[in-house]
Amino acid sequence: MNKYLITGFSGFVGRHFVEYLEKHDRICQVKGLDIQHPNFRFDHYKNVQISFEKIDLLSKDKVEYVIHEFQPNYILHLASYSSVAFSWKEPVQSFQNNTNIFLNLIDAARKLNIDTRILSIGSSEEYGNVNDDDLPLKEDHKLNPVSPYAVARMAQEYLSGVYIGGYGMDIVLTRSFNHIGPMQSSVFVVSSLAKQLVELKKSGKDRGSMVTGDVSIVRDFTDVRDVVRAYYLLLQQGRKGNVYNVCSGKGLPLKDIIDIMAKQLNMEVDIHVDPRLIRPADNRIIIGSNEKIRRELGWENTIPLEQSLRDVINYWESN
Amino acid sequence: MNKYLITGFSGFVGRHFVEYLEKHDRICQVKGLDIQHPNFRFDHYKNVQISFEKIDLLSKDKVEYVIHEFQPNYILHLASYSSVAFSWKEPVQSFQNNTNIFLNLIDAARKLNIDTRILSIGSSEEYGNVNDDDLPLKEDHKLNPVSPYAVARMAQEYLSGVYIGGYGMDIVLTRSFNHIGPMQSSVFVVSSLAKQLVELKKSGKDRGSMVTGDVSIVRDFTDVRDVVRAYYLLLQQGRKGNVYNVCSGKGLPLKDIIDIMAKQLNMEVDIHVDPRLIRPADNRIIIGSNEKIRRELGWENTIPLEQSLRDVINYWESN
Repeated sequence: MNKYLITGFSGFVGRHFVEYLEKHDRICQVKGLDIQHPNFRFDHYKNVQISFEKIDLLSKDKVEYVIHEFQPNYILHLASYSSVAFSWKEPVQSFQNNTNIFLNLIDAARKLNIDTRILSIGSSEEYGNVNDDDLPLKEDHKLNPVSPYAVARMAQEYLSGVYIGGYGMDIVLTRSFNHIGPMQSSVFVVSSLAKQLVELKKSGKDRGSMVTGDVSIVRDFTDVRDVVRAYYLLLQQGRKGNVYNVCSGKGLPLKDIIDIMAKQLNMEVDIHVDPRLIRPADNRIIIGSNEKIRRELGWENTIPLEQSLRDVINYWESN
Repeated sequence: MNKYLITGFSGFVGRHFVEYLEKHDRICQVKGLDIQHPNFRFDHYKNVQISFEKIDLLSKDKVEYVIHEFQPNYILHLASYSSVAFSWKEPVQSFQNNTNIFLNLIDAARKLNIDTRILSIGSSEEYGNVNDDDLPLKEDHKLNPVSPYAVARMAQEYLSGVYIGGYGMDIVLTRSFNHIGPMQSSVFVVSSLAKQLVELKKSGKDRGSMVTGDVSIVRDFTDVRDVVRAYYLLLQQGRKGNVYNVCSGKGLPLKDIIDIMAKQLNMEVDIHVDPRLIRPADNRIIIGSNEKIRRELGWENTIPLEQSLRDVINYWESN
C-alpha cells in the first residue's frame, strides 16, 4: 500500500492533494504533518487512511522519529513560509524556516536510508526579474532570486542536487507558479482580493474601493486542483533530479483578476495602490512554460481561470 | 578612525589580516569575534587596537548588540564552517551554521541601519564540477555547487544580492580559492600534509608513507598573506555588489604539492589513497581567473608557491 508523508498538511494544497488521492488512488495511507492542526475534518475519506501529527519540522529528532515509524514511500514536502511579503519583513526567519525544515526532512530520510521518493516544491520566484524575451520561462532559464524567500527556494533546489548526487537520494523538484482555488488562506493575493470583494458585496455595495499593492504585476495562475494532479504525477512518474514548472503558461496582471471577479459579482471597484504595500524588489512579469510537464507526464491544466475565480468567490461567500 | 569588525577572528586568515593592518593601515580599531578564543597574543600591535569577544554568531541578539556598540565601518566576515569534508558528514550543521551566521550578521547591520561595508567571503567550491574548456574560471561562470558547503556559500551570495538590491546595503563579495600559509589549521589539506611530512621527518625517516584522500584533484593555491591584501583592497575599493575571484590563476594537483614539500625536506614519500577519505562528489579541477581583481584593484599574488610551502613547513617544524 502506498504511504504518503505530507508536510504542511493543514494548508490548502495538502487538503486538495488528499481529495485527489481519495478520487484517483487505490487505498493508501497518509501521514499529515503540520505545525498547526488542520481546520478541516479528514475522517470521512474511504480510500485514504489519514493520521495527523502536530510537529515543528525544525525539531530534527522528531522528524526522524516520524519518518522511521511511518516508512513512507512518498514524501510530499508542502510545508513552507511561502509569503514573499513576509520574507521581506522577516528575512532571517523566512529563510531559515524554509531551508532548515527541508534539510531536516531530507537528512532524516538519508540517515534512515529509507526507500522513498521526495517531491520538493520550489517556486517561480526563483527566476526573479526576467526580460520579456525570456517568457514563457523554461526550466533551463537562469535563476535570479530577488527576495529572501526566493533564495531559500533556490537553496532548496541545490541542496536537493547535493543529496541526489552525493547520497543517491530520489528527489523530484517543481517550480510552482501561483496557485489559486477555494480554501486558500487570505494571506495570498487572489484569495485576499476575493475576500475583500465578497465583504464589500455583503455590505450591500455595488461599488467600492480597495487598497492594494502593485496590481500591474503579471502572474501565471493555476487552479490548485490541477496543481495537486501535477504533484501526484510527478511523484509517480517524474524523472529523478529533474525540475518541472507547474504553471498554466498564461500570464495576467492582478488588475485583470480583480476586474474578472468584480464582474462575476456585478460590482465596480476603484483600486487605490498603497505604496507601503509595494515590496522592495518585485518581479514584474512571471509566466512559465509548462511544455516539459505536458510532454513528459501528459499533464495539462483543465480548469479555466474564470472557473477558479468563481469557486474562490463561492468559497468566501459561504465562509 | 577605521573600525573593522572581524568574524572568525581566531582563524589564521583573521590573524594575517591583523598583521596586514598593522603594517599597512593607519591607526585603526579591530573588534574580533569568534566562538573560540584565539590561541595567539594580540596585545603587541602598535597601530591596531584590538578587542576580542567570544560569541556564537547564531546568537542573533548578541550579534546585534556588538554591532550597535562597535559601529564598524568595515565588516570582514571570515567565520564559517569551511570544511567541505565536514559538510558531507554533517550537512545540516554545516549548511545552517554557514548561512545562519551570515544572515544574522547582515540582518543586524540592516536593522541598525549603520553605514558599513561588508566583505562576504565565498568559495571557489561554488563553481562545482566544470569542463576543462571553462578554465580558468571567471566570475560570470555558472555556479554549480556539488557539496552542502558549496550550496551554503552560493546561498550567501544570493542573500547578499537580496540585501543589496532590496535594502540598499553595501556588500562586496569574494569567491576565494584555496589558501595556504603558516598558522593554518591541520584540518585543511596542505597544512595537514605538511604536518604529516614534518612528523615523519622528525621521527628520523627520509622515506615514509602517507595515507591521503584523492591527490589527483587540482586546486588553485594562494598564500594567505596575498589573500588578506586582496580582502583589504576589496574593503577599500571593491565595487558594491560585485564578486571577485581571489586566486593565483594556476592549478596544481595535490600530488605535486606533496612532491614539492617532500623535496624541500629531502624526503621520499609513498602515497596510499584511502577510499574512505574520498568525498561523495568532488570537483576534479579548480583553477580561477584573477583577471578582474588584478584589473580593477591592481592586486597580484606576490608569494611563490614554493615559498608558501616552505613557510608552512617551517611553521610545523617550530610548533
